[in-house]
Amino acid sequence: MMPGGAGVRRPDHQTTTRDPADLSAEAVLAPYLRAQAADFLRSLRLHREHSAPTDPGQGGADAAASALRRSARRISGSLHTFRGVLDPVWADQLRTELAWLSGTLAREHAYSTRLVRLLEALHRLSGAALPAARSSATAPASASPAAPGEERAALGVGAARAGALLERQLTLARTRAHSAALQALGSSRFHAVADAVALLASEVPLAAGATGPAAEALLESAERAEQRLLGAVAALPPDETAEPYNEAQDAPWHQARLLLRLHRYAHEVVLGAPDPVLAGAGNALDLHRDAAEAAAAAAAAARTPRIAPATAYALGVLHADQRHEVEAARGVFRETWPYAAAATAP
Amino acid sequence: MMPGGAGVRRPDHQTTTRDPADLSAEAVLAPYLRAQAADFLRSLRLHREHSAPTDPGQGGADAAASALRRSARRISGSLHTFRGVLDPVWADQLRTELAWLSGTLAREHAYSTRLVRLLEALHRLSGAALPAARSSATAPASASPAAPGEERAALGVGAARAGALLERQLTLARTRAHSAALQALGSSRFHAVADAVALLASEVPLAAGATGPAAEALLESAERAEQRLLGAVAALPPDETAEPYNEAQDAPWHQARLLLRLHRYAHEVVLGAPDPVLAGAGNALDLHRDAAEAAAAAAAAARTPRIAPATAYALGVLHADQRHEVEAARGVFRETWPYAAAATAP
Repeated sequence: MMPGGAGVRRPDHQTTTRDPADLSAEAVLAPYLRAQAADFLRSLRLHREHSAPTDPGQGGADAAASALRRSARRISGSLHTFRGVLDPVWADQLRTELAWLSGTLAREHAYSTRLVRLLEALHRLSGAALPAARSSATAPASASPAAPGEERAALGVGAARAGALLERQLTLARTRAHSAALQALGSSRFHAVADAVALLASEVPLAAGATGPAAEALLESAERAEQRLLGAVAALPPDETAEPYNEAQDAPWHQARLLLRLHRYAHEVVLGAPDPVLAGAGNALDLHRDAAEAAAAAAAAARTPRIAPATAYALGVLHADQRHEVEAARGVFRETWPYAAAATAP
Repeated sequence: MMPGGAGVRRPDHQTTTRDPADLSAEAVLAPYLRAQAADFLRSLRLHREHSAPTDPGQGGADAAASALRRSARRISGSLHTFRGVLDPVWADQLRTELAWLSGTLAREHAYSTRLVRLLEALHRLSGAALPAARSSATAPASASPAAPGEERAALGVGAARAGALLERQLTLARTRAHSAALQALGSSRFHAVADAVALLASEVPLAAGATGPAAEALLESAERAEQRLLGAVAALPPDETAEPYNEAQDAPWHQARLLLRLHRYAHEVVLGAPDPVLAGAGNALDLHRDAAEAAAAAAAAARTPRIAPATAYALGVLHADQRHEVEAARGVFRETWPYAAAATAP
């Protein structure tokens, strides 16, 4: 269906903006998908090189895996948003496989950044009144506060133990995720994905009619994606009703994050360049997700049997701190959100 | 020194404003002190009536004690600010005794409101992911978050235990404070204070020269009180450098609260009426103090030996929550603060 162009890494549409109404859906979407596919394949090559036993460090492999996920998300997102102009069976199948792949690759990165976030927060909280274990004391008769100096001197015990516990748990989880990622990248399932993406780099399976004007097919799809996002943002619970520690209230925010991502990618396809304002709002929702998951990890660590009360206390402080970071991220999102609060069409 | 007027409960100066430059220091300050002294004596009478065994409830005695502290603070604050126009030996002595009295009476009230604040916060946090004790599990291999439903179902254990622990500790502290207050009110030391205040209701011991124009003596004293406050507010650490869990940073805020109180009372004396804007800023600093002390009580409870980790965890969440309330109160204070940020004379 596609005229030539295989292997073109940076087609014009990535650096210039143009009126998509002048072009066919094929002429707009196919180069985007081909460019992302080429990025995917290059990242895969880089990842293989840096995963070789002769490679000095883990940094190169991490960067390559991150780039691999980046392309996979964009291909997968475009297949979802522009399913109407693509071969639907092919699109659904490849999308499922790319979601599996990027999900598998994301886990290692997530555990690693979560640990860094939690250890940094514990370090920041080191000014906190974390209580020391007092083996000699009986139950205090009054709840009169200890002197600040005493509390500050005593802070280390629980925080240090909490940090060690989180490091143990998240490093173990990360190691398992790393093994799972390596296993996935060596699997026949992955090779089938890589083959499909390689095919995409040379030919995009379009639906019949995708050679018509882009305005009709692509813009309609992109607009639907935008409307879904605006609807989700408008439906976010207002700050006044927010209960900061109620994690069940996070779901609509996580949903908005995914829809914003789809909208951003559709924007890249249709207008040929990313929107920095949407990127800012997306960063806020990424931070929201990171803080929510870090809070959950602190809560999970506190469920470890036989931990010392001082450790549990520090984890409680940490949990609350991360839930307040969740709240802060919501505030940043509302500030950066470029649309009016009411979800009317832009 | 004073012409008549004993027992006048609501002299004009409490309901009208007037130019203090037209009046002598004596004509301005003496009626204010006499009115506060009369309020003090009336509250004391009410407190005795409501503390009788035939009285149906504790509410009347609480309200009377609160009114008693209110007058004691105003008399004591005025003796401090306007020491220059008063007999200094008498003023210092009565001020010391009133500080002892209101401090003793305040403690019971403080423990009782602290408990209410902490139990309400725990109730609000009940949406939190407070971890349940998991007797069957071994240490979780990964720190993957539990489903929100699971976390919400599990919340009760630690929060309920933390609430029971706080209730036990603060009720005990409150009961002791109540006994101490009753003992103080029956002591010869208190009877001497009540006698001094009764004397104040009929005659204010002024310094020589207090019959001169109020503008010179009173306004200068009131302005010094204002300058001390403005200096303290200007010296408050900026929000950017604040470490929310560092309780040592609270001290300048507590100091600003006391200076604002002195300024408010001086304002009442000189201008004849309270300033609602200053009252709003004062409320914010009261909330700041309450939240800081509640956080310290949570930290103190977490130092109780042999508590369950789930209890300690809930206390950690509670501590962090109250420290964020401390931060919020600072924000409210900055918003309501009527002067420019830089501490120049108004």
